[in-house]
Amino acid sequence: MEFTAQQIAQLIQGEVEGNPDAIVRDVSKIEEGKPETLTFLANPKYTHHIYNTEASVVIVNKTFMAEKPVKATLIKVDDAYRALAKLLQMYQESLPKKSGIEQPSFIDGSAQLGDFVYVGAFSYIGENAKIADKVQIYPQVYVGDGVQIGENTIIYPGARIYKGCRIGANCVIHSGAVIGSDGFGFAPGADGKFEKIPQVGIVVLEDYVEIGSNTTIDRATMGETIISEGTKLDNLIQVAHNVEIGKNSVLAAQTGIAGSTKIGNNVMFGGQVGISGHLKIADGVKLAAQTGVSKSITKANATQMGSPSMDAMQYNKAYVVFRNLPDLRQRVDAIEKGEKK
Amino acid sequence: MEFTAQQIAQLIQGEVEGNPDAIVRDVSKIEEGKPETLTFLANPKYTHHIYNTEASVVIVNKTFMAEKPVKATLIKVDDAYRALAKLLQMYQESLPKKSGIEQPSFIDGSAQLGDFVYVGAFSYIGENAKIADKVQIYPQVYVGDGVQIGENTIIYPGARIYKGCRIGANCVIHSGAVIGSDGFGFAPGADGKFEKIPQVGIVVLEDYVEIGSNTTIDRATMGETIISEGTKLDNLIQVAHNVEIGKNSVLAAQTGIAGSTKIGNNVMFGGQVGISGHLKIADGVKLAAQTGVSKSITKANATQMGSPSMDAMQYNKAYVVFRNLPDLRQRVDAIEKGEKK
Amino acid sequence: MEFTAQQIAQLIQGEVEGNPDAIVRDVSKIEEGKPETLTFLANPKYTHHIYNTEASVVIVNKTFMAEKPVKATLIKVDDAYRALAKLLQMYQESLPKKSGIEQPSFIDGSAQLGDFVYVGAFSYIGENAKIADKVQIYPQVYVGDGVQIGENTIIYPGARIYKGCRIGANCVIHSGAVIGSDGFGFAPGADGKFEKIPQVGIVVLEDYVEIGSNTTIDRATMGETIISEGTKLDNLIQVAHNVEIGKNSVLAAQTGIAGSTKIGNNVMFGGQVGISGHLKIADGVKLAAQTGVSKSITKANATQMGSPSMDAMQYNKAYVVFRNLPDLRQRVDAIEKGEKK
Repeated sequence: MEFTAQQIAQLIQGEVEGNPDAIVRDVSKIEEGKPETLTFLANPKYTHHIYNTEASVVIVNKTFMAEKPVKATLIKVDDAYRALAKLLQMYQESLPKKSGIEQPSFIDGSAQLGDFVYVGAFSYIGENAKIADKVQIYPQVYVGDGVQIGENTIIYPGARIYKGCRIGANCVIHSGAVIGSDGFGFAPGADGKFEKIPQVGIVVLEDYVEIGSNTTIDRATMGETIISEGTKLDNLIQVAHNVEIGKNSVLAAQTGIAGSTKIGNNVMFGGQVGISGHLKIADGVKLAAQTGVSKSITKANATQMGSPSMDAMQYNKAYVVFRNLPDLRQRVDAIEKGEKK
Repeated sequence: MEFTAQQIAQLIQGEVEGNPDAIVRDVSKIEEGKPETLTFLANPKYTHHIYNTEASVVIVNKTFMAEKPVKATLIKVDDAYRALAKLLQMYQESLPKKSGIEQPSFIDGSAQLGDFVYVGAFSYIGENAKIADKVQIYPQVYVGDGVQIGENTIIYPGARIYKGCRIGANCVIHSGAVIGSDGFGFAPGADGKFEKIPQVGIVVLEDYVEIGSNTTIDRATMGETIISEGTKLDNLIQVAHNVEIGKNSVLAAQTGIAGSTKIGNNVMFGGQVGISGHLKIADGVKLAAQTGVSKSITKANATQMGSPSMDAMQYNKAYVVFRNLPDLRQRVDAIEKGEKK
Repeated sequence: MEFTAQQIAQLIQGEVEGNPDAIVRDVSKIEEGKPETLTFLANPKYTHHIYNTEASVVIVNKTFMAEKPVKATLIKVDDAYRALAKLLQMYQESLPKKSGIEQPSFIDGSAQLGDFVYVGAFSYIGENAKIADKVQIYPQVYVGDGVQIGENTIIYPGARIYKGCRIGANCVIHSGAVIGSDGFGFAPGADGKFEKIPQVGIVVLEDYVEIGSNTTIDRATMGETIISEGTKLDNLIQVAHNVEIGKNSVLAAQTGIAGSTKIGNNVMFGGQVGISGHLKIADGVKLAAQTGVSKSITKANATQMGSPSMDAMQYNKAYVVFRNLPDLRQRVDAIEKGEKK
């Protein structure tokens, strides 16, 4: 493939600054800057690379003002990151898609498959499963009895969906993700032994949900565990039974949400966050990495940090003092000695 | 299916309060309260829902005393949560079970299979493996050479058991769990390179153990990594080589136990707990979520918190002061200034 | 198998102290001390066991000086742990290896397989994949289109390698590990929805890399996510897109590295460590378990702890005061009251 800066600018409605005939044959990171490649600048941390990059074309925000000469051709757009997203999506859609039913695979006679479905080898589709049009099921996937999967959804190798769960349209589920395993429910007895509570609910993923590799989402004890439309979960996340997560939320890797907690829309959680069970987290809440939430957060758009968590500003201020606690103690020692004089 | 409150009460030895002919066709969560369903009340946090629920029947503890009129029929039992467990177990046992050997599957000629075993498609049973009666092996499971699995154990799709490991009776192993991968053992050399220590031990799960999705349990360097009878592990837990966990313990998701640590009976760990290697944790110890344990806990039934961990009460008291550390520092500033006057 | 202490000493260039004809039939842990077994002593915590062990032969460091009589025969070497490694490696290499292509498996016609390759049943090898000599691919593995795997590498059941990734020689990849799933890249829009950034880069594992069970390594947005030669990753680790980890580093379980962070050589991270994105971590850095790093660490061989992290010594000193914060506050209270008098 070969494009000019001008051709790319047209695809993403950008404005060319520099040589419109600059050639692009591949993409690269701005800090690597390979010749004849396209790159982008969105994170200000990387701005200094633009003055040295060997990349021929750089997509930048309209607000970018060069402070030194830039050799590369710039394409200026409203939002460089989204423009890149659009461009890479167009590229990816131009690639050939897997299709057809590879053998050997196991598709129960009662399962319904739509048109243009791909089922990879060693995948298993259980009784009465319903797979909509253009779904792509890679090899070694498990789709349990009665599972429903909406249009265009992609399921990567080795993902598992337990019986009865419902997956929306345009979802992406990565390798090793487990949707619908039993919630962790045991009733303790007087003898110290635990009695299993069978988990008879399901998991529902709405449309445009993405689930990372080896993330686990447990089925509800009764009713549904729900991931709402447009929400994206990174890798190795744990979502316990009866949790509900709102729309357009992003949760970074290794976060864990305990049972029955309800999370609002548009939240953003850093990695390794933990949230206790039976809480409510308001819309737009942001949690720093490794935050541990043990109480409901009722204020929309709050930012919290710490374990147990508190307002992030408060935490940071307290932590500044924490770093120098031995000093504070010495000052108190000194004051006490002074008094004794 | 359709039951009356009276019929259900008989199954769980409960006492009906209200209309004994109230009809139940399904189960629901108390906060959803769907008509003609059975629900339960065990967590006091949810008590207020009982006055509005549309559920026709609610299982409650004998100690529950309504403060307002309740429309639903109550069934009073000693332990509502355990009664629910029993009821759902009876329901689940009434469902048809998977059985027989699906094709294609791979069962080595030297493997021994008991009666009424289910082996799902694409499952692999290695040389000299021994599978007892009524074991259910779902599709895409890996059972390595010489593995032994006891009666009634259920292994969900895509779980992996490396060679030589022993799984007890009545265990449940969820999707993506890995039993018996190599312990993380490397000998550092003067050149900075690491030499792999082959891990020649195994993993032993005793009876009634449950292992959550994508949990990993490493084989011992020598000897055995052991999960004792009745212990339940949630999802995404790491158990390192030569760890031993006692009986009837529950570990919440994303907890990690480093090598050679020995854990007692009846412990309860919250999510994302971490325990260093070569420690001993006494019986009945409770650890709050995200606790980091770096020293042995010798006192039975201790409750710890923090990282590194300490007595939970002490941690909470210290943390109260931590939240307001800038205030404490200002007070010390003020005292010093006062002295200078 | 049966060896004498003398024979073993020759294999590892050690010196026998005690009966050179002591018999060894198996290995055991020093604290178990079974008769006619070989064991070792490397961790000083276990020294007291050497005086009671029933093991017939113990490998010890040359520096070990018995303070009481030892019944077992000792073999003294420069480095007991490395000597054990060598011995167990010799043992493991003496075991028969899996070989050949088990059926059913799926090997695309365009894939190239070297000599003495093992492909287990239900494994999938995609288009144009290149598998070098003596590679062992256990059952149920997924090798995507265009993947390259170097000589002698072992891939355990159910590991997944997405298209285009390159795996070096002499690597070990454990069950459920996912190499090359999409990086977590989404461009937020004004409407609150997230646009997926297709991830068009790859993952590169250099030679002698080991990847633990259920660890996930995301492909780069553009370019490569890199794990360098000799580095070992434990179980359930998350490595985000465009991360680079240097040589001969060891990362303990459940650690997470956010996007684009560059990590040096010879680092050692404890379990459950978290590192934010776009940082640089110098060579030889050590991080205590559960450390949360939010700023680059530029000083080689630094040891950090805490969340956010700081110098480990500083953290420990501050934490000592933290434990007794209520006491410090009371002292300030007392001083204030005294002043008011």
